[in-house]
Amino acid sequence: MSSKVAVLVAGSWGTALASVLASNHPNVVIWSRNEEQVQEINLKHMNSRYLPKVKLPESLKATSNLEEAVKDAMAVVIVAPSAAMREVAHAIKPYWHKDMLIIHATKGFETETLKRMSSVIAEELGCNEGDMVVLSGPSHAEEVVRRCPTTVVVASLNDNAAAAAQKLFINADFRVYTNRDMVGVELAGALKNIIALGAGMSDGLGFGDNAKAALLTRGLAEITRIGVEMGANPLTFSGLAGIGDLVVTATSRHSRNWRAGSMLGEGMKLEEVLSSMGMVVEGIRTTKAAFSIAQKYNVQMPIADQLYHVLFENMNPRTAVEALMGRLPKTEMETMTLETWEQWHS
Amino acid sequence: MSSKVAVLVAGSWGTALASVLASNHPNVVIWSRNEEQVQEINLKHMNSRYLPKVKLPESLKATSNLEEAVKDAMAVVIVAPSAAMREVAHAIKPYWHKDMLIIHATKGFETETLKRMSSVIAEELGCNEGDMVVLSGPSHAEEVVRRCPTTVVVASLNDNAAAAAQKLFINADFRVYTNRDMVGVELAGALKNIIALGAGMSDGLGFGDNAKAALLTRGLAEITRIGVEMGANPLTFSGLAGIGDLVVTATSRHSRNWRAGSMLGEGMKLEEVLSSMGMVVEGIRTTKAAFSIAQKYNVQMPIADQLYHVLFENMNPRTAVEALMGRLPKTEMETMTLETWEQWHS
Repeated sequence: MSSKVAVLVAGSWGTALASVLASNHPNVVIWSRNEEQVQEINLKHMNSRYLPKVKLPESLKATSNLEEAVKDAMAVVIVAPSAAMREVAHAIKPYWHKDMLIIHATKGFETETLKRMSSVIAEELGCNEGDMVVLSGPSHAEEVVRRCPTTVVVASLNDNAAAAAQKLFINADFRVYTNRDMVGVELAGALKNIIALGAGMSDGLGFGDNAKAALLTRGLAEITRIGVEMGANPLTFSGLAGIGDLVVTATSRHSRNWRAGSMLGEGMKLEEVLSSMGMVVEGIRTTKAAFSIAQKYNVQMPIADQLYHVLFENMNPRTAVEALMGRLPKTEMETMTLETWEQWHS
Repeated sequence: MSSKVAVLVAGSWGTALASVLASNHPNVVIWSRNEEQVQEINLKHMNSRYLPKVKLPESLKATSNLEEAVKDAMAVVIVAPSAAMREVAHAIKPYWHKDMLIIHATKGFETETLKRMSSVIAEELGCNEGDMVVLSGPSHAEEVVRRCPTTVVVASLNDNAAAAAQKLFINADFRVYTNRDMVGVELAGALKNIIALGAGMSDGLGFGDNAKAALLTRGLAEITRIGVEMGANPLTFSGLAGIGDLVVTATSRHSRNWRAGSMLGEGMKLEEVLSSMGMVVEGIRTTKAAFSIAQKYNVQMPIADQLYHVLFENMNPRTAVEALMGRLPKTEMETMTLETWEQWHS
């Protein structure tokens, strides 16, 4: 096994993580199907489509040859869109070996099966899900490549795997903490995108900061509730992958999910939003998944429900957000999850 | 007893709450020492110093005569700066009677005694602290007077008092939820201003959204930890008065605490910041109180500590924020409060 670290694929977050890795290690390869992008990274040290005006480390190499990227790698970092995850995991199967550390940083579900990304990868590779590592947290790619101070969590059931991932990524600007609640970190990262879409929609409608704060508060309770049902530790939702990521995604101009929500609030149709973004907006797929998950687990997810109606059933965004503001229960503690906390601790 | 509701004093939040009340009730009086302000409210229906360009309800009356405002009132809403709370409570004592509902909406401590505002008021009036009501939540005054959708919490140990306060304030734009954790609501509202100052400082230094999200996450854990030591229910910190208010205070251009922190981050001295604000910045006094509270309860409050050094001991803001970013423990769960949750539930 070489000291090579491979990153798949070269979107904004994959490129940013590759950039962090390349500033720590001499042998980092990023894989992209797009030959033009490969050439731009190798010759100009840029990925102008996803991270305009940013210079990448010169040691970062790109390739369109998957075997060249992955074969004999000590670690593979997968940052594929959730819709492409199974295909990408399947493609690397021939090169996978049991000492290869698998880290993923994709926030979403497989819509058809409602599976978490680590389950999808484990199924395709035939490896143990608990040995994988999930990387998540409040981390806009645009700031990471500019070396703004950033903190993330790496979660795994395997402490050695988490420690190895921490060692690969950590540096003075990119601080990496370990967490054993892999399921919670994965769920928090995926589900928070729904709330960010809703917050953007509220902003797009001109509802103001007070309304957005109420939505975020309620949203965090909502995703914690479903997360706990699905096996997460509720405390994870109060950590970097939960509140931290929710705040940064729902209040920052860098966030795609917020931006997509904001455009919907301003009256654009879903197709127009998607075509004007030109990038994957994970929160849209995640809303579809959450709508099904809520039914499967019989848990109320009012924000996900309303967003589903807006996205896929043409409901007016104003009607949806007003319904959410009006439907808060009378006593605040009704929104809280004391029962689930108690269950979890018992 | 008349149907009169009195509001003291006519700062931005007092005026906004009076405006909500006056849109619900015919007999609302706001008290101010400043005769010019009283005239402006009565004749022009404006309070241009604190809420420029906003028209107040015409039925809202102002007076500089405290007896006229408070005597025989069914409810008195106190929104004095924390430093003036004892004096204001003392002044209304002669008019207080046991059927008078006392609501306060001030976020801070008495710096000298480290007492919560409701304790200060109860001491001066000689009334039962648990019968009082605290109003808090994510609610910029500027948005409330423009009737942007807003949600707040009213907390009291006395359910009838909380219900009466809810009834006074609630309307289609201003949604009011009850909560029995009066101590927690009061502590969350006061302590979150420290974190907002820190977030502003990080922004003023140009550290970016990723760093701010990490600070907010860590800050919420910090204020929950001390809050629980002081008798709060930790779930309150996950509600409107906690996360909700923290998000709105730490990410909004309307927030004075964020703005003060931001100016400090940009290199201004405390005196310059205070004179340029022209309004009370509660977070500064609260930082001083929290520094003492942390020692008294023997609880670590790293953010409050660093801010104290910047505000009162001339520490460089960059050194402070870098120290905070660097001092996060290795394992994320170390920052969490599982022990305190367990204690609280046992």
